Amino acid sequence: MLSKNQIKSITRLKQKKYRYQQGFFVVEGIKTIKELLESNLVLHALYTTESFNIDAKDEIIISEGELKRISFLSTPNKALAVFKIPKPKTIRTDKLIVALDAVRDPGNLGTIIRLCDWFGVDELVCSKETVDCYNPKVIQATMGSITRVNISYVELDVFLKECGLPVYGAFMEGEVVYTKSLPDTGILVMGNEANGISKAVEAALTDKVSIPRFGDLQVTESLNVATATAVLLSEFKRRVY
Amino acid sequence: MLSKNQIKSITRLKQKKYRYQQGFFVVEGIKTIKELLESNLVLHALYTTESFNIDAKDEIIISEGELKRISFLSTPNKALAVFKIPKPKTIRTDKLIVALDAVRDPGNLGTIIRLCDWFGVDELVCSKETVDCYNPKVIQATMGSITRVNISYVELDVFLKECGLPVYGAFMEGEVVYTKSLPDTGILVMGNEANGISKAVEAALTDKVSIPRFGDLQVTESLNVATATAVLLSEFKRRVY
Repeated sequence: MLSKNQIKSITRLKQKKYRYQQGFFVVEGIKTIKELLESNLVLHALYTTESFNIDAKDEIIISEGELKRISFLSTPNKALAVFKIPKPKTIRTDKLIVALDAVRDPGNLGTIIRLCDWFGVDELVCSKETVDCYNPKVIQATMGSITRVNISYVELDVFLKECGLPVYGAFMEGEVVYTKSLPDTGILVMGNEANGISKAVEAALTDKVSIPRFGDLQVTESLNVATATAVLLSEFKRRVY
Repeated sequence: MLSKNQIKSITRLKQKKYRYQQGFFVVEGIKTIKELLESNLVLHALYTTESFNIDAKDEIIISEGELKRISFLSTPNKALAVFKIPKPKTIRTDKLIVALDAVRDPGNLGTIIRLCDWFGVDELVCSKETVDCYNPKVIQATMGSITRVNISYVELDVFLKECGLPVYGAFMEGEVVYTKSLPDTGILVMGNEANGISKAVEAALTDKVSIPRFGDLQVTESLNVATATAVLLSEFKRRVY
């Protein structure tokens, strides 16, 4: 049986403050937990309604009612794991990097982490205003990709100015990406959902690129930041074909 | 003041059955409602906490408490409009069409409608198993694009067999899309989130395409259907550059 204190220490990991105070984050669902168990992440505790038959001394069998009390989901999925937040690794600058300037929506960040994984981008560099990658909704959306992408939170404008790489920012009025020459090594910066790239980060760009609109040109809607990242990453990578 | 019956007739528009029985759907948020008011859609009623100053005899000023009772959102956004579901138009087959085979997630459908709008795709053809485009979560995700894309629900395998167009399906093991010749007129089919394209629809394809994976090749995760649609639509359209 879970004690009140155990329940409290898990449920408050919903909040970023407690995650970094305690150094833990929560992952839910058998499939994602299994994938994370096979990674370098260190398991702290696994709460599950049916045994994983894994060599985890920290596996704790609980009832569905108990799972419901600790889960962040409206329909909990059989297991909840608590992992240690890994120490950030040094940012490698010898390949294409994606940088995010204040991306706020957890689903968008999760999708972008999956995209980095798919397109072989190992480094994701986020401004401090970007949503925390250990937010449970981000973890849910990454489908395990979070173990294969190194995510760092930095003073983004300072990092971009000091990195010595070409820095491409996604802008509505940038150069058409389809005909632009794109390097193997460099940084692709994507901006906030509502406001795009901030002035401070804009000052650190070397180039601005855009995905042209093919539909009704009088309409000013933009693409969602995750789908725009998909198209732009594909453009950086497709040139080897 | 809203009567109990009025509240009930609005809130049950959450369910597809009642939407099609009554012929109405709900839109929330001032920005999206304004965009829809400028389209060909017919307004049935507008419930709002502050007047839109529009020439709408059906504008009904309500309190925030009342809005909360009819809203589908946890934080209602000042207004809720009920529009008539438009009659489906004939499917035009002289341009690129996107077809969806049992896409279930409202957010994914909403994002794909936005992508169609961006890339100038006027026709979106859905299998009957695809989530209803007048689902409030879809409307929320489309950001007004729903007024610029004609969406039809059909027996997808029959439609594809009879349309006489080249039909491209997105498959993990398809031909690399980057080097494939792609037509201006044709159909791009995207499959279900978990199971991909069904056998019946697969039998109607003329070609299979894939977005190559650049990351760790031993991992079998797929791209999310909305981000894959972004990359593939971009590929069909970029060739004019």
